[in-house]
Amino acid sequence: MRVTFLGTAAARPTVGRNVSALSVQREGDLVLFDCGEGTQRQMMRYGTGFALSAIFITHIHADHFLGLTGLLRTMGLQGRTEALPVYGPKRSGRILEQAVHLGLERVSFPVTVTELEPGERVERGDWAIEAFAVQHGVRAIGYALQEDDRLGRFDVERARALGVPEGPAFGRLHRGEAVEAIDGRMVHPHEVVGPSRPGRKVVYTGDTRPAPSVVEAARGADLLVHDATFLREDAERAHETHHSTAEGAARVALEAGVRRLALTHLSARYAELPHLAESEAREVFPGAVVAWDGFTIEVPFPDGEAE
Amino acid sequence: MRVTFLGTAAARPTVGRNVSALSVQREGDLVLFDCGEGTQRQMMRYGTGFALSAIFITHIHADHFLGLTGLLRTMGLQGRTEALPVYGPKRSGRILEQAVHLGLERVSFPVTVTELEPGERVERGDWAIEAFAVQHGVRAIGYALQEDDRLGRFDVERARALGVPEGPAFGRLHRGEAVEAIDGRMVHPHEVVGPSRPGRKVVYTGDTRPAPSVVEAARGADLLVHDATFLREDAERAHETHHSTAEGAARVALEAGVRRLALTHLSARYAELPHLAESEAREVFPGAVVAWDGFTIEVPFPDGEAE
Repeated sequence: MRVTFLGTAAARPTVGRNVSALSVQREGDLVLFDCGEGTQRQMMRYGTGFALSAIFITHIHADHFLGLTGLLRTMGLQGRTEALPVYGPKRSGRILEQAVHLGLERVSFPVTVTELEPGERVERGDWAIEAFAVQHGVRAIGYALQEDDRLGRFDVERARALGVPEGPAFGRLHRGEAVEAIDGRMVHPHEVVGPSRPGRKVVYTGDTRPAPSVVEAARGADLLVHDATFLREDAERAHETHHSTAEGAARVALEAGVRRLALTHLSARYAELPHLAESEAREVFPGAVVAWDGFTIEVPFPDGEAE
Repeated sequence: MRVTFLGTAAARPTVGRNVSALSVQREGDLVLFDCGEGTQRQMMRYGTGFALSAIFITHIHADHFLGLTGLLRTMGLQGRTEALPVYGPKRSGRILEQAVHLGLERVSFPVTVTELEPGERVERGDWAIEAFAVQHGVRAIGYALQEDDRLGRFDVERARALGVPEGPAFGRLHRGEAVEAIDGRMVHPHEVVGPSRPGRKVVYTGDTRPAPSVVEAARGADLLVHDATFLREDAERAHETHHSTAEGAARVALEAGVRRLALTHLSARYAELPHLAESEAREVFPGAVVAWDGFTIEVPFPDGEAE
């Protein structure tokens, strides 16, 4: 699972940081979270490809969705015909539809816009994306990506010792079915399969104040991507504008017990000074990193396996 | 007068070229022609500043106006209060208004949208911008920037010899008023002021086929910026899509007798091969250049004076 930061600036882009967007590539799926102006060009620059399965918008402030229109036009020019679902929070549908259809050109493939309440899930086979509540003063949601648990480890040596015939019986046993051994005895899954192993969890807040609902959603995540618009010295401004400081984000990460924290949505005033936000966050959460445009994280499984 | 190319790609951006936008800085005025997605960031990158006097849109294909929304939001965040006029072709007003107001945020300064017919002029003190007809299959216009003629050269030595008292009388005489010499004789402007000198003319086509109306509008221009989406080998495709080849653009430049030709709006397939378009154009118009993002032209006066 590869997370690519396509835009790490706050409301305004800077020369070095574009406005918000984040892509997640997982096996055949490519999904986009937020789509600020210029995201399509960032996708070219950082090589994510355009084979998007879905787009998830956290809220409809300009810096989070204006890139939708151009991205859809470009995918049309590329010959896309497959439908594309776009998700957003409640009451975002009308404005997202306007963005989809803005201009003379018609989108050449179907685009569906769906509003999600906190707690609603989009199932994608063996993973799901669940909306959760954030605190941003407007209707805004974050998204938690959760893979299904994987099957437990299959003990091949033990299966052989028990006389399970090699071949399809191994797979049936691994998937939870009892099979007959060579000596006629039934072998049960618990004899050769370990406990199921948790899938990976990645949580993206979009814009938010530090919030208990985020702590809850991020509990045990392998990666938390959190708003860190301001530094401690601007804590009051962060609160007024419904954003977080780097320190505030780190406290959320600590309380939620996440494995890794990446900070994004940096105010233009600190855009060239990411070490300041990083230092403040690391006082609370030592592994915190401030993302940059093009920064990529390969998210490992909780048990340390690469895949 | 400084012309800066902010985006030189056709419908889709590439890593190296953004979609269409062109700024012209002239004394206190900064005006923008077209505003594709990501233009605000290009303005930061190439240092044009944001003190825009007006924005002129050639037509409402996505790659020419989608950047308007984000640019206006950013100017609002910067504290702009001054009104900003936006111009476009007939029937573009509704969609341009949608782009201006898209999203939750209100624009914090007045934005007026005005539709222009070919032949209509926007006067800006001692220069004007006139819309002209192009051929792009949809309602589209080009823009011709024309400075007023400057006063003729004032012959200081001759004025002194004729006994004109130094001081305000020189200025009155220069501006066309007869003044009294020391000996009581009236000195007339034609005795000391040369013929008025033409101002500069810059013509931007936006997207178009080679067209007689463009030749007419570009007649004698100091700089023509012309659509050159395709190469000769794609001439049929250029015609079908209402665009020009580099060669077609060069023929227009030649026929119009312009001083300088800059080609823009390159198809993504040639974006990294500008020398091909340049070679084809130069067979017809030797001084042709293919613009790149950030390319700047300082336009001299026709008589060679820098200012």
